[in-house]
Amino acid sequence: MTDRSRLAVIGLGLIGGSLARAVRQGPAAPWVIGFTLDPLEAAEAEGLGVVDATRRSAAEAVEGAALVVVAVPPAAMAEVFRAIAPALGPATVVTDVGSVKASVVAAARAELGQHWPRFVPGHPLAGAEKSGVAAGHAGLFQGQRVLLTPLPETDPAAVATVTRLWQECGAVVETLGVAVHDEVLALTSHLPHVLAYALVHEVRNYAGPVDPFRYTGGGFRDFTRIAASDPALWSDIAMANRPALLAALAGYRAALDRLTVALSAADESGLRSYFGEAQAARLACTPPPLNPETPAP
Amino acid sequence: MTDRSRLAVIGLGLIGGSLARAVRQGPAAPWVIGFTLDPLEAAEAEGLGVVDATRRSAAEAVEGAALVVVAVPPAAMAEVFRAIAPALGPATVVTDVGSVKASVVAAARAELGQHWPRFVPGHPLAGAEKSGVAAGHAGLFQGQRVLLTPLPETDPAAVATVTRLWQECGAVVETLGVAVHDEVLALTSHLPHVLAYALVHEVRNYAGPVDPFRYTGGGFRDFTRIAASDPALWSDIAMANRPALLAALAGYRAALDRLTVALSAADESGLRSYFGEAQAARLACTPPPLNPETPAP
Repeated sequence: MTDRSRLAVIGLGLIGGSLARAVRQGPAAPWVIGFTLDPLEAAEAEGLGVVDATRRSAAEAVEGAALVVVAVPPAAMAEVFRAIAPALGPATVVTDVGSVKASVVAAARAELGQHWPRFVPGHPLAGAEKSGVAAGHAGLFQGQRVLLTPLPETDPAAVATVTRLWQECGAVVETLGVAVHDEVLALTSHLPHVLAYALVHEVRNYAGPVDPFRYTGGGFRDFTRIAASDPALWSDIAMANRPALLAALAGYRAALDRLTVALSAADESGLRSYFGEAQAARLACTPPPLNPETPAP
Repeated sequence: MTDRSRLAVIGLGLIGGSLARAVRQGPAAPWVIGFTLDPLEAAEAEGLGVVDATRRSAAEAVEGAALVVVAVPPAAMAEVFRAIAPALGPATVVTDVGSVKASVVAAARAELGQHWPRFVPGHPLAGAEKSGVAAGHAGLFQGQRVLLTPLPETDPAAVATVTRLWQECGAVVETLGVAVHDEVLALTSHLPHVLAYALVHEVRNYAGPVDPFRYTGGGFRDFTRIAASDPALWSDIAMANRPALLAALAGYRAALDRLTVALSAADESGLRSYFGEAQAARLACTPPPLNPETPAP
């Protein structure tokens, strides 16, 4: 039986678990089968009612599913695609939630065989510095953007199916090219994570007579919130988006070099203009609202 | 008449205005006289009931005051000290709220004359990316840290007076050396502001086919909240703390150089360890809670 009423979610972390919760509360209310490599997480997902049932393998979980969402870290995508390919139905649509798209697309193209045209690369711009199934909630995607990066050969009906899935979770869906996605996300997400981790290191390395973490305010708190993110996931993302992240880092280092020159030269008006341009751009853009259920730590 | 019941606040921006509101609602409830160079801001402060009255000059405002709080940007401190020195009473205590202490201490020492021993350098670790008297509120300092950096020659009774003032606003007061303050705040506050402004510039400079600001999530929102801060104030702070900020920038650029080498070499385990150490440090530190009355934009 392959119909819309069966959804498989592979990976039951923050994103996979929240998606499962959201669709089960949505209008389609499909039967949701989950799989995670971690038996404790599987038990927790069942106990919390995040999924209707779990299976012992990814292949078993996708059997009979109309739609499969792969919600594992970038480095684990290829292995999951390989494991599920033989068990997919002839019309099953597959999507993912990876923060990097080129590497996932390459893995899907290599592993999904005849199912490749029904693979829709996806990336919900939602998350938190917390991870794990217990950290998730059905409202995580409400009002947030989900980016799909279909290829020319991707079946439009598959794109429509995945678009509907996310809309039912309250998200706003947009499509974008794979390379543009990875370049833009390197700048807006991957680089800030690296920068936040690096700032915490610099504060931690302070060699003076006091604990500098005592003397932090709201600016530090918000700037470094993402430095509490899962290091394994983020080193994986950095590796998966290496070329774009290296380019973003090079551009950023050049900007700091210019700022250092301006500050060394006591060029106050240059600094003020630079800060002012950034302020105007920041005030003009409208990031999504703070999700009240996932407060900063 | 010089008694505790008269407090002068010079500068009625976010910090000065919030302090005025807080003390007027506190147990001592002094008579609060304000002064600001901006006549519209003065009228607004009176209209909002932030102060009991305003005066036409800083010197008039401090007349008869037991305690004077100078809440102007770092670059304006010297001028204010010069203006008020002749009008201060023989026992008047003076404090400031500047984010940089060495430059303010130098200005106070040069300008306050006989009053210098009763000058207590101060810095409330509170603020927001918003500015102006209307953005303030009486709860701004509740549970936040205020740092005092008295010198060996500072009168302990003056330190006690200023400590009491901030405690009445709900703050936790600590003392710190001037140089240590400026080094630590360069790392925990001034550097993050510069980094946030620079990130917004890099995103803004993206030359691809889409508006990258559309594709930002909660990480970007929180990381760049401080890039919406007043550029004139922050270029002033950067200039006032130039040596410490240049040192912090140099250390940070070296950290980014090392990260670039690790990423170029595809050293995933090195990245993971680095991110993991930062995560542990960030989770172990406890910045003050988000102030619910000053939400991120």
